[in-house]
Amino acid sequence: MQELLDSSKTADWRTLDPANTLYLDLAAGRVVIELAPDFAPAHVANIRTLAHEHYWDGLSINRSQDNFVVQWGDPAEDDAKRKSLGSAKAHLPAEFTRSSKGVAFVGLPDHDGWAPQVGFSEGFPAARDPRTGTTWLTHCYGTVGAGRDMAADSSNGTELYVVDGQSPRQLDRNITVVGRVVQGMELLSVLPRGTAPLGMYAKPEQRVPIRSLTLASDVPEAQRTPLQVLRTDTPLFTAVVEARRNRRDDWYKVPAGHIDLCNVPLPARAPAK
Amino acid sequence: MQELLDSSKTADWRTLDPANTLYLDLAAGRVVIELAPDFAPAHVANIRTLAHEHYWDGLSINRSQDNFVVQWGDPAEDDAKRKSLGSAKAHLPAEFTRSSKGVAFVGLPDHDGWAPQVGFSEGFPAARDPRTGTTWLTHCYGTVGAGRDMAADSSNGTELYVVDGQSPRQLDRNITVVGRVVQGMELLSVLPRGTAPLGMYAKPEQRVPIRSLTLASDVPEAQRTPLQVLRTDTPLFTAVVEARRNRRDDWYKVPAGHIDLCNVPLPARAPAK
Repeated sequence: MQELLDSSKTADWRTLDPANTLYLDLAAGRVVIELAPDFAPAHVANIRTLAHEHYWDGLSINRSQDNFVVQWGDPAEDDAKRKSLGSAKAHLPAEFTRSSKGVAFVGLPDHDGWAPQVGFSEGFPAARDPRTGTTWLTHCYGTVGAGRDMAADSSNGTELYVVDGQSPRQLDRNITVVGRVVQGMELLSVLPRGTAPLGMYAKPEQRVPIRSLTLASDVPEAQRTPLQVLRTDTPLFTAVVEARRNRRDDWYKVPAGHIDLCNVPLPARAPAK
Repeated sequence: MQELLDSSKTADWRTLDPANTLYLDLAAGRVVIELAPDFAPAHVANIRTLAHEHYWDGLSINRSQDNFVVQWGDPAEDDAKRKSLGSAKAHLPAEFTRSSKGVAFVGLPDHDGWAPQVGFSEGFPAARDPRTGTTWLTHCYGTVGAGRDMAADSSNGTELYVVDGQSPRQLDRNITVVGRVVQGMELLSVLPRGTAPLGMYAKPEQRVPIRSLTLASDVPEAQRTPLQVLRTDTPLFTAVVEARRNRRDDWYKVPAGHIDLCNVPLPARAPAK
């Protein structure tokens, strides 16, 4: 795979749009998240407003459940004590799926048990169902979603979770996916697991403080983390997937002949200077 | 699922055999591993010898690669400085697959892209191929395997890795699986990721010391961690899998209608007193 990446051209990469990039800054470092406005327009708009108004700054990561997710937001259980949403909306529609009409989709030929078709759309792992004419983003390692209560439309984008275990694809079409972590997963995946139900931290002092959660476009250019991600709609990407589907290095004795959507690597790099 | 487990009978559980159970004791606590002697007899015999003779005590976890594995063993790169194997063997056969003849196997009805059939054998996630007449243990979260070099038969059981990310099923049939972590994954999955290639710790002081890696049967009974795991060949287990395949609680709006082998929970519990 590295040989393929080394042979890549500039056009094989795309640069993250600062207006749709979040920086989650922790004491341990920066996590870079790419938002998916075309898949969750109302949620992403709200998240952009919340980040712009520094809603999350000083809040915390409150949940770390082994082989599942980490999650952050306002830990206050008492509604009266919850942080103001500022000019963000308190109610959003469920954005679990979208119409497939006009959606670019590069399918994988590999069978998937969870959806009729899987592949990539706008660089995100995605699935679609020709019968219902819908497309949705899937839950893979690094996927970011908006936590909700029982009602489908009960998320407001303030409670964000990141998948850091075996892909929980059963969540697909049940919750709104808002983006994915492009860099810095290793800062989240190592957080101590919470011991209360659902991996919540049992004691307030165990919570991991959020220094800031900011839109890249609100950060002075010198403090940004410029990143490019490999395009998923190129011959090079197809070759990368095939190199993983059937590994041809000396170590592998039996090529798998298959790859699961969530096993496909999505490389990122700093742009060439 | 919890309701099903609450309704379980004693016969739905099996008690771990102390002679095939390893305790990996770290400063953070104990990781409990069930060995799979029927799938990797030569490796498990060697591992039992190594543990009995305290081979790993004082060695370290040397690798933590995000979304992949943690691995321990002798960090010395110079052969002359490597710890003596004692009476353990220096060479073992590759034990990637075994004959399916006489192997109890409870199949999942769900399609799997990596193998013709998947399910459970002796409580372990497994796959088989009727065409070749072979069965093998699969790489899921918590699977323990024996690291090797280029040659298929180059493992001796001293370098053990544990999967702590998206299931790397491409490793199936390419390396010897020796067991799985039954309890304590959260002590391994949070270890800081190594920054050297393959997630190796760049500096010796970053390695995580192993206090001891012991066979449960070599530990005084009062210091053992008695554990039962849910049997995988019972009607109750079939019901547990179905409860996860099609979730019927109020939160899920769209049941998946599918489950991947590595998403099936394998509950463990302390035996009733």
